[in-house]
Amino acid sequence: MRETLAALEAGEIGVEEAESRLAGYATTDAGRFDAARERRRGIPEAILAEGKTPAEVAALATTALETTGRALVTRADEATASAVTSAVGDADATIDRDDRIGSVVAHAGDFEPPSLDAAVAVVAAGTADAPVAGEAAVVAREIGATVDRVDDVGVANLDRILDQLDRIREADAVIVAAGREGALPTVVAGLVDAPVIALPVSTGYGVGGEGVAALSGALQSCSVLTTVNVDAGFVAGAQAGLIARAVDAARAE
Amino acid sequence: MRETLAALEAGEIGVEEAESRLAGYATTDAGRFDAARERRRGIPEAILAEGKTPAEVAALATTALETTGRALVTRADEATASAVTSAVGDADATIDRDDRIGSVVAHAGDFEPPSLDAAVAVVAAGTADAPVAGEAAVVAREIGATVDRVDDVGVANLDRILDQLDRIREADAVIVAAGREGALPTVVAGLVDAPVIALPVSTGYGVGGEGVAALSGALQSCSVLTTVNVDAGFVAGAQAGLIARAVDAARAE
Amino acid sequence: MRETLAALEAGEIGVEEAESRLAGYATTDAGRFDAARERRRGIPEAILAEGKTPAEVAALATTALETTGRALVTRADEATASAVTSAVGDADATIDRDDRIGSVVAHAGDFEPPSLDAAVAVVAAGTADAPVAGEAAVVAREIGATVDRVDDVGVANLDRILDQLDRIREADAVIVAAGREGALPTVVAGLVDAPVIALPVSTGYGVGGEGVAALSGALQSCSVLTTVNVDAGFVAGAQAGLIARAVDAARAE
Amino acid sequence: MRETLAALEAGEIGVEEAESRLAGYATTDAGRFDAARERRRGIPEAILAEGKTPAEVAALATTALETTGRALVTRADEATASAVTSAVGDADATIDRDDRIGSVVAHAGDFEPPSLDAAVAVVAAGTADAPVAGEAAVVAREIGATVDRVDDVGVANLDRILDQLDRIREADAVIVAAGREGALPTVVAGLVDAPVIALPVSTGYGVGGEGVAALSGALQSCSVLTTVNVDAGFVAGAQAGLIARAVDAARAE
Amino acid sequence: MRETLAALEAGEIGVEEAESRLAGYATTDAGRFDAARERRRGIPEAILAEGKTPAEVAALATTALETTGRALVTRADEATASAVTSAVGDADATIDRDDRIGSVVAHAGDFEPPSLDAAVAVVAAGTADAPVAGEAAVVAREIGATVDRVDDVGVANLDRILDQLDRIREADAVIVAAGREGALPTVVAGLVDAPVIALPVSTGYGVGGEGVAALSGALQSCSVLTTVNVDAGFVAGAQAGLIARAVDAARAE
Amino acid sequence: MRETLAALEAGEIGVEEAESRLAGYATTDAGRFDAARERRRGIPEAILAEGKTPAEVAALATTALETTGRALVTRADEATASAVTSAVGDADATIDRDDRIGSVVAHAGDFEPPSLDAAVAVVAAGTADAPVAGEAAVVAREIGATVDRVDDVGVANLDRILDQLDRIREADAVIVAAGREGALPTVVAGLVDAPVIALPVSTGYGVGGEGVAALSGALQSCSVLTTVNVDAGFVAGAQAGLIARAVDAARAE
Amino acid sequence: MRETLAALEAGEIGVEEAESRLAGYATTDAGRFDAARERRRGIPEAILAEGKTPAEVAALATTALETTGRALVTRADEATASAVTSAVGDADATIDRDDRIGSVVAHAGDFEPPSLDAAVAVVAAGTADAPVAGEAAVVAREIGATVDRVDDVGVANLDRILDQLDRIREADAVIVAAGREGALPTVVAGLVDAPVIALPVSTGYGVGGEGVAALSGALQSCSVLTTVNVDAGFVAGAQAGLIARAVDAARAE
Amino acid sequence: MRETLAALEAGEIGVEEAESRLAGYATTDAGRFDAARERRRGIPEAILAEGKTPAEVAALATTALETTGRALVTRADEATASAVTSAVGDADATIDRDDRIGSVVAHAGDFEPPSLDAAVAVVAAGTADAPVAGEAAVVAREIGATVDRVDDVGVANLDRILDQLDRIREADAVIVAAGREGALPTVVAGLVDAPVIALPVSTGYGVGGEGVAALSGALQSCSVLTTVNVDAGFVAGAQAGLIARAVDAARAE
Repeated sequence: MRETLAALEAGEIGVEEAESRLAGYATTDAGRFDAARERRRGIPEAILAEGKTPAEVAALATTALETTGRALVTRADEATASAVTSAVGDADATIDRDDRIGSVVAHAGDFEPPSLDAAVAVVAAGTADAPVAGEAAVVAREIGATVDRVDDVGVANLDRILDQLDRIREADAVIVAAGREGALPTVVAGLVDAPVIALPVSTGYGVGGEGVAALSGALQSCSVLTTVNVDAGFVAGAQAGLIARAVDAARAE
Repeated sequence: MRETLAALEAGEIGVEEAESRLAGYATTDAGRFDAARERRRGIPEAILAEGKTPAEVAALATTALETTGRALVTRADEATASAVTSAVGDADATIDRDDRIGSVVAHAGDFEPPSLDAAVAVVAAGTADAPVAGEAAVVAREIGATVDRVDDVGVANLDRILDQLDRIREADAVIVAAGREGALPTVVAGLVDAPVIALPVSTGYGVGGEGVAALSGALQSCSVLTTVNVDAGFVAGAQAGLIARAVDAARAE
Repeated sequence: MRETLAALEAGEIGVEEAESRLAGYATTDAGRFDAARERRRGIPEAILAEGKTPAEVAALATTALETTGRALVTRADEATASAVTSAVGDADATIDRDDRIGSVVAHAGDFEPPSLDAAVAVVAAGTADAPVAGEAAVVAREIGATVDRVDDVGVANLDRILDQLDRIREADAVIVAAGREGALPTVVAGLVDAPVIALPVSTGYGVGGEGVAALSGALQSCSVLTTVNVDAGFVAGAQAGLIARAVDAARAE
Repeated sequence: MRETLAALEAGEIGVEEAESRLAGYATTDAGRFDAARERRRGIPEAILAEGKTPAEVAALATTALETTGRALVTRADEATASAVTSAVGDADATIDRDDRIGSVVAHAGDFEPPSLDAAVAVVAAGTADAPVAGEAAVVAREIGATVDRVDDVGVANLDRILDQLDRIREADAVIVAAGREGALPTVVAGLVDAPVIALPVSTGYGVGGEGVAALSGALQSCSVLTTVNVDAGFVAGAQAGLIARAVDAARAE
Repeated sequence: MRETLAALEAGEIGVEEAESRLAGYATTDAGRFDAARERRRGIPEAILAEGKTPAEVAALATTALETTGRALVTRADEATASAVTSAVGDADATIDRDDRIGSVVAHAGDFEPPSLDAAVAVVAAGTADAPVAGEAAVVAREIGATVDRVDDVGVANLDRILDQLDRIREADAVIVAAGREGALPTVVAGLVDAPVIALPVSTGYGVGGEGVAALSGALQSCSVLTTVNVDAGFVAGAQAGLIARAVDAARAE
Repeated sequence: MRETLAALEAGEIGVEEAESRLAGYATTDAGRFDAARERRRGIPEAILAEGKTPAEVAALATTALETTGRALVTRADEATASAVTSAVGDADATIDRDDRIGSVVAHAGDFEPPSLDAAVAVVAAGTADAPVAGEAAVVAREIGATVDRVDDVGVANLDRILDQLDRIREADAVIVAAGREGALPTVVAGLVDAPVIALPVSTGYGVGGEGVAALSGALQSCSVLTTVNVDAGFVAGAQAGLIARAVDAARAE
Repeated sequence: MRETLAALEAGEIGVEEAESRLAGYATTDAGRFDAARERRRGIPEAILAEGKTPAEVAALATTALETTGRALVTRADEATASAVTSAVGDADATIDRDDRIGSVVAHAGDFEPPSLDAAVAVVAAGTADAPVAGEAAVVAREIGATVDRVDDVGVANLDRILDQLDRIREADAVIVAAGREGALPTVVAGLVDAPVIALPVSTGYGVGGEGVAALSGALQSCSVLTTVNVDAGFVAGAQAGLIARAVDAARAE
Repeated sequence: MRETLAALEAGEIGVEEAESRLAGYATTDAGRFDAARERRRGIPEAILAEGKTPAEVAALATTALETTGRALVTRADEATASAVTSAVGDADATIDRDDRIGSVVAHAGDFEPPSLDAAVAVVAAGTADAPVAGEAAVVAREIGATVDRVDDVGVANLDRILDQLDRIREADAVIVAAGREGALPTVVAGLVDAPVIALPVSTGYGVGGEGVAALSGALQSCSVLTTVNVDAGFVAGAQAGLIARAVDAARAE
């Protein structure tokens, strides 16, 4: 820190450069945080709808769209999604809304989505895992990765997953969404080379239900993988996107 | 109940027959419970060493040997195993002691072990699962089943289990012991026809460790299986033995 | 694995035979997994309605009916059950729907249900345990077992269970459904010879409620039994059905 | 409160009487609390050894002996029990020490133990439950109740408990100690008229082990009973003693 | 058991007497269990409405009324209470329904409620604890005890409880209902002679909310008391009623 | 205690003074508890709406207003808030109602709110934390503290909090509301001198959701801070108010 | 931040001032963190011995002594305490070691301990709570507060606490240490004006043992208080010390 | 799968190629699994010492060394580490043993360690987090990554982490080890571009201790990161190594 401050004192750098070096971001008038995270990590600043009113979410989405050229809303119920769609629609943006996933993605007219030379596979065990896997896919795609979705490959019938192995092996990062006992991420991580991210899903009832068994299984896996929280599709997608960005950057070197 | 009592009142049956019909066992002087369970279900009355002193365990084992012709001690530490071996050894019995498993099995000189025309496969994921699987195997064998042990077939490398599938498919009941994330019982139950019993093992550290993730996974399995508690090798072996007895009896009809 | 591959290479077997040997199933165009599990284990592929939309469940049920001649939907609310009934009704099937249980069973006109020479007893402690016991009974019956339901035999009044003992003892496998403290499976398993499967039910409030005490009691039982998760009637019924199949096959040898 | 204070102000009562009415105890120089609880409720003030050094326990026991004529130490390991025995032995008291139970009871030479015209049955499921049941019995006996111990009547073999029913029914209060799945208190409470107190015991391993399943079962029991914490033999014995005192007092009216 | 059977065989007793001795109840055509528990323990067989349909509850209540002269329904929502009231009203009974408590009590025209020479105090900490305390009071009153309710005496202001101490000390058994941190039962049990039963209430939010902290506090209490599960007003009232019956019987000796 | 009683006996003090010294409060006819806590600690007696009917809350609020000149209702849903507003409005009070926070504050016409020479900072991490922080702010303000709210300073972007540091450092006590992983209280407590109170908020889903991770983090913080329960805005605000009162009193010395 | 940087750029302030304003601490060569926290908050940087080797703790203590003039080690076992005493003893410091508490405090010869015009009461329920209370007292004293310890005032006998009330009311902040059911902090907070900090202690066995019930009770308390984690004497003492510092500063204004 | 089998049948590929394509590994005589995982993913097959005897671990290590040229043992106590060192030492390998970390790494004389053009930063909050961070570093280094360790940067003093930011930002993947409240991973992930892996450490006592709060915080983080289980240094290191391998491969394209 002293070096930067000394450089500033000496007039070698300006205030903005100093602030940027010290804090990692520069401040803008229009909503410092949104622009900052996106510019820095390439992750669209997602607006988690839970715990906020539809009006609050719509306002945040509008600000995000104005500041960064896009808005990404997750875990929105229909009322919230409609509020966002309506508010953002006034701003002449293209909108991609998926009520099963609970996501709304809006791009301003002049927004150029990023495009990475890297692929993410999003693998899902069953029908009930699809919405959470879908949220992950939306996020990874917004970051710019090529996304390949592989559905309905639960371990109760091993050849379903074995048949899709070649596709999965082509990805630079793999997300595996599974609820119930969550054995699929462990099995997949034993079969591929790329980093695997487990995405436990809140299916299952009784003890260990609501994704707890699946999360515990990911934490205890005898294969190498990391995990996100139950239903945290955004985080899984964003982390896979960060890996894709690192690979894309390395390819471009 | 009225019918039995009426029959007794009418002199059609005697007291012992009535007692046996009503309660399911007859009483003997030498330790009613031991003889009863073994005679009835064919399960040797196991003496769980935990929570008892070595002297108590040794006394119970001696009684079991005298009453039923054999004794089966489980979860014994070395001091207890030695106390049992010493006490039972005086009674001129053959002794089979395994300190890794914590089991001591003693047969009186004239004891004829049962032999069933039915097989139990005991599958274990890794080295650390072997002792618990061993306890299950001991019990199933004492009940009379042919036991086939299949070790070291964890799901991190699927071909280990696929290579052994033919052996496992020959069993009439399958026990699958696994700790950590416990994915193996789910995978095996998707591959075989026979009833599968999950036997979670208390391996793994951190959240979900000590077998909790493995048990949760068994409870949430998307394959059909039932489970026993963590490390409950005795129960898994005994239940598999009961299935083997049912199959053996049907074969003999 | 090498043997199979060598046989294929040598032309001794064909591709389908090799695939079947290696993976355990053959692939069909119309929905590989449904046909596979049913043909292999005789368990109708149940469609768990929770976490799926009515339309998804109806579509899966239609596919199941077309592929395997029957469909079994579990844990359906009324909207889902109606959607299934409507969709499947178009296919000219016989439908058995029970809204208390949440099940819909459909048989195609030419479906011949299996019939096993083996019996399953489904024992329930109280009125509130009946729906979950009912789900287990439906599944065991679909597998082909003779099912005997014994209701309202909770341990608060022991003679209720003692009076029904003769009926229960005639079964080849016994399912015992109980909520609250779940003492009934332990008591029953101490009284019968056949394998007992505990089926904890999500009754009870406060600490240990929602079936947690009942499940814990099954895991800790001092009698020999295995357990399924809370309310997992399908799994209990299917496992009992697998035992019945094993006994039936042995009787037929 | 106003009445008492007015009476004191008016000189109708003295300070000690006022204090006693207001607070429920009178203060003495020699250790107010010990004498107070014992005189009031007849429960010997137990000294819980856990979390205290042997020297602290011995000092408290000596004070108890001097103040109230007796000392009751619970959950003492051998070092603590020896320290107590040694310290109290100097005071010329009769000592009853049971290392399996972890209890030390000392009576001063002139201590006259209370004697109630009321009985407490202490029922234990198995060998491992005996020490905790023993602690309860010691306490109930010190309060003055006639104590009848009924051991080894676990529910895995129902006739063990049915055979002892007449003895148990003679008690004015019943304590039922059981670990594992803890079904025994529920079964006993369905068979007797007297109030039943469940005493869960910390046996059992795995999920629900260490008495958690037994406690949960007591809380969820479909019979009427109240419970104490796992291994809380002192509390169960004291509460049964309080009931015995109430019955004894009513008999004496 | 042998004695009873021998006596029956010898013709010294009849079948009904034998059944009654062996099982603890006699069977009637009209609903064996209801009559049995009530006649034996004096506890009205409560019908827990949760987990049952209104129609099922109404049918059970009607049977209870016909068999035993009264019906006690607990934890009924308004729809269920109305169904019961309607069904039972046809039977010309007096009905006492309290929707805040969720209870419906019906007495047949010729029912003579029991009356005991013993008192139960039902103490409640705050307004939100009143309904659960009310359920306990209803049950104790139905058993025949004189019930004294002491409300709004939470420990945040100690003189509220100290002012009511004389009333509470007149009871033969004391129920203390409290949610949140549940300190009141511990404080009361330090101030009275009679047995105290803690009745934790499901108030409080966050960690330890829903009565869990209150129950934990009862289990850990440094005063002598036993506890029931969270919100288990029926059990607390019934156990207090059993103590009152024991005291009443002793007074009558 | 003896001194007070002796003084009373000697006529040196009156009954009310004695009662006040002994119990800490004096009794009034109009609702002893309300007046007592407020007069003593300066904390308005809040009426927690959860678990009470709208009518009960309105009645308590009316009493509070009459007795102490104000009423503070927390965690009220809209129906309850309306009932309170309506009931209290008849009493000609000024009302401050915030439905997002769930609070209603009413001041009687002649009520003079306290004013302290001390400041409380209420810091919130994100939008979803604002309502709980708002409840804390309302309470601290009612106690008389100057309240400074600092919103939207989550740790995902450190400069947001660093930019506001000067404002926060001016407070005599700091409340930090945060949900999710709850890192903000730890970070703030490392940056300021004043006592910090963590206020975990029930945001976040999956394992550790509903504020559990945030509370755990506060309990484990490597900075010095104390915590309240999840969403316990009232308690945090009141404790900060007590600190402000202590500081205000010291300033006035 | 911009203002500070602009001021630095303009030469109005120097680098160190800028760093101090921005980060809250200045860096020294001899161990930045120790000096920083102590100088800023007046809290001696405690060295938590758990999880570190005796050698590591001794080295950290030596550094602390050299840098700040004192060292405070907490939760040290005897080996660690001896290692610290030995290492620090070489540095010619006065040492205060308490093995029951597990603390070692060392002051350099020229260290002038702070002295505040403010008092902290440290209240403990029972003998087993004393060590944890002792740790809190050590810390508060090192910060400079006058500390008054009030021991053995558990709620099972209310007059013990009522008798000490005047002493406790003289404090500016109150710490209340209690294990088991932890009712004492709630009772005390209802009786005093000053801020109360609950300090749960890891006593008690069974469910809710190890301080969990006491912590839950603090979180759910119906009195106003904040809490620290189980056994976190250091944190409680430090927070009380921070309040004392605030009061002392206000008194000095 | 069909394509591969058809190719084999047509003689286009051999058996080994087919096996490798189908299962993902080829079988060798000397221990199929070791070689397979290492060759495929570049992760040395670690031998987890917990739950195995020293002799078993030593045997596995010897096999690993012979098969793959190296052995990596984790979580070894001193006895196990010595057994491994002794057994492996006979094989003329270079050994790197760290008893604080519990790791033993052995390289055969002719083993050429991999070297990647990619860097991993391993960040640790405090002294107690160092061993777990060390295990992660060992593994990442064995995979071939350049490892930069950044120690002692806990969030209680933010400038410690801000000062090291430039170093951390140079890494291609970042592991952040922290116990207690685990705020550091969240703070770091808000400051860097690379993927961050949280590594919770089992420090901290009381509720949320043993790393549970840290893990919960990682799962709930408002920054983007994935996590491994508590103390799972091996998994964190291996996953970071896989990312490094992906980046290295992309750089080499």
